[in-house]
Formats: sequence, C-alpha cells, structure tokens
Amino acid sequence: MKTQRIAPRSGVAFELSKGQALTVIDPQGTQVADLLAYSRGDVREVISNGRTFDYEETIALTTGNRLWSNRSNPLLAIEEDTVGRHDFLLTPCSEATFRRFYPDKAVHPGCFGNLAQALGPWGIEPDAIPCAFNVFMNVPVAPDGSLRVDPPTSRPGDFIRLRALADLVIGLTACSAYASNGGSFKPIDYRIE
Amino acid sequence: MKTQRIAPRSGVAFELSKGQALTVIDPQGTQVADLLAYSRGDVREVISNGRTFDYEETIALTTGNRLWSNRSNPLLAIEEDTVGRHDFLLTPCSEATFRRFYPDKAVHPGCFGNLAQALGPWGIEPDAIPCAFNVFMNVPVAPDGSLRVDPPTSRPGDFIRLRALADLVIGLTACSAYASNGGSFKPIDYRIE
Repeated sequence: MKTQRIAPRSGVAFELSKGQALTVIDPQGTQVADLLAYSRGDVREVISNGRTFDYEETIALTTGNRLWSNRSNPLLAIEEDTVGRHDFLLTPCSEATFRRFYPDKAVHPGCFGNLAQALGPWGIEPDAIPCAFNVFMNVPVAPDGSLRVDPPTSRPGDFIRLRALADLVIGLTACSAYASNGGSFKPIDYRIE
Repeated sequence: MKTQRIAPRSGVAFELSKGQALTVIDPQGTQVADLLAYSRGDVREVISNGRTFDYEETIALTTGNRLWSNRSNPLLAIEEDTVGRHDFLLTPCSEATFRRFYPDKAVHPGCFGNLAQALGPWGIEPDAIPCAFNVFMNVPVAPDGSLRVDPPTSRPGDFIRLRALADLVIGLTACSAYASNGGSFKPIDYRIE
C-alpha cells in the first residue's frame, strides 16, 4: 500500500494481519504517535506495558524488543527503529489531561478520544484503552523516579517498523498534546507491507 | 477491625469505603503485596499505572502521592509509608510468568490467579486485571532503562497506609513469585480503619 497520512491531532484504526509490517514515520520530525494493538480474534487481549516491561526486562524498547499482551502473548516485534526513544509509561492524552496540564488551552479529545472513536467499530470501549506504546515520545526518568516529557528526538523521515505476530486491530494517532511534540501539531505517516 | 493475615502465596478481596484507611503491613519483612483498586460503582474503573505516572509525574510513589484510575479520578492517597519503595511498572506474576522465569519450578496461579479468583464475585474478569500497585516491591530502573527485581527493603512491621478517595473493591495478595520476595514466601497483614 502507499503511505497514508494521519492529520494533526487525529487518529485512525485498521487491521494488520499476522506477518504484515507496520512502519510508522515522523514526516516532519518532533512528533508523537500513540499506538495500540488488540488481538482481532478477541479484543479483550491488548498490549500491556507491564507485561512488556516484565518480559523484555526494560522500559526502553527498541529494535529486537517485542510488545506483549495482557495474556502474555507477543503481539508486535520491533524490527527497525531509527530513533530508539519511545515511551510506554504514560496513557494517551485526554480531555482530563488537557484540563490538568493545559488549563489555559481549549480542551481537546486528545489521543484518548481519537483512539476511542477510531476503535469503536471493533467493539473496543473507552475503558478498554490502556497505556499506548507512544512512538517517538521522549520521557526521561530521573534517578529519583521523576518523569519529564521532552520533545521527541525524531527528525524528518525517522521511522519504526513493527511486525505483527498475530492478527491485530491497530489504533494510531498523530498526538494532540502540547508537551509531547514541543507545542507543534504535525501529521504522522504510516505504511503496511 | 483487627489485623487480618493473608497466607503466603494467596490473595483476598474486600470492600473499602470512601474515607476508610487501608494499612498493608509486612509482618516478617522482605515480602511483596500486589494491590488493585476498582471503583465499586462501576468496576470498569480501575487504578492505572500510566494515569498515575502522568498525574504524579513520577514512577516512585510514596507518601503524598495518589493512585489514579483509567478515568482520571484519584482512588487512593498514600498517607504514610515506612518503606518508600514500591513498584507500579510490572503486572502480577501469573502461570505464564512462572513458566518463563522459573522453568524448573512448579507452575503456580501467582498473584494474577489469586487476584482473579478473589475479585470474581464482584464481576471482575481476568482480562480486567491491569498492572497492580506492587507494595514493597523493589524494581530499580537503570539509566539505560533496564529493570531488575531485587528483594524488598521492608523490615518486619513496615507498612503503608492508603486512604480511599472513593468506594472501592480492593484486591490484595501475599506475593507468590520467587524474585520479588527473595525466594521466601511469607504472609502479608492488613487492617481497615
């Protein structure tokens, strides 16, 4: 397929079959894409940050790591990654996080609302949206455990390629939050092969 | 109420009403208790490590921090903590994690199985068990992001006290995994006030 574009501050969902590769591209640099993956056969199975941290024994996921489900199955394998800096600690930005972190800005459905809307046709409810794998999101953890959300280090054309290890439903956004993309809302591109 | 004991490698569930305090005690030292909290009014609302990390801006949760739900409500506040070292990164140990990390040991339902059984009467299904707040669990994160599971630093009588900010259903275990408690299975005590 040809490369698809996700407009700034929006999200999409689509099916990815076992063996297919999904490439997520940052076309302009310094942008985040929240990624969710559900098992198509039973959407109660979904990627889990905790199971992934447990099995991969790291919170810094890159080439060679896999994303595991709440049922302890690997759903996606990271095959290539030109950035090496992603986040799996934080939940998608939402109306509530906008109210909290940007009280002077207009409230936006955020990646959470965009994912909920895009995934609805597969019977996935908002409460079934866990922590997303936040592609290109740059969240340094200090030695004392404190977190910071810094602008992504991705440059124009940087990408990550993930291989489906099961038949999946994917949710994917161009992030809506100010902090995660340095205050500039940009598109995200993706390609299925 | 008088102090209750959770037998080694088992788990319980109970209701905790808004305003009540739950004290989790390590009676013998070096033991972990996996804690889950669901909103009693709608058990689809549950504590979320990602929302908690987002709002508290740290992965090192102790006195003064709150545990937030997937719906962005604070469910529990940590009021006192004599240990200051807990984990919210990892999912409860399960049959699958036993097969993976202890292939030479007997498979055990683990905290996951114990929580699923204890929470069943409230209509909470196994797939609705997210990352637990792992009381006293000691998971250092190295600068490169890699994780290690070390024995807890808790000594006999150490405790954490959490105040309910909503009407809750609590799941609580005495952990079943080898690594998390230094290979010795011990009880956990708790008290509601």
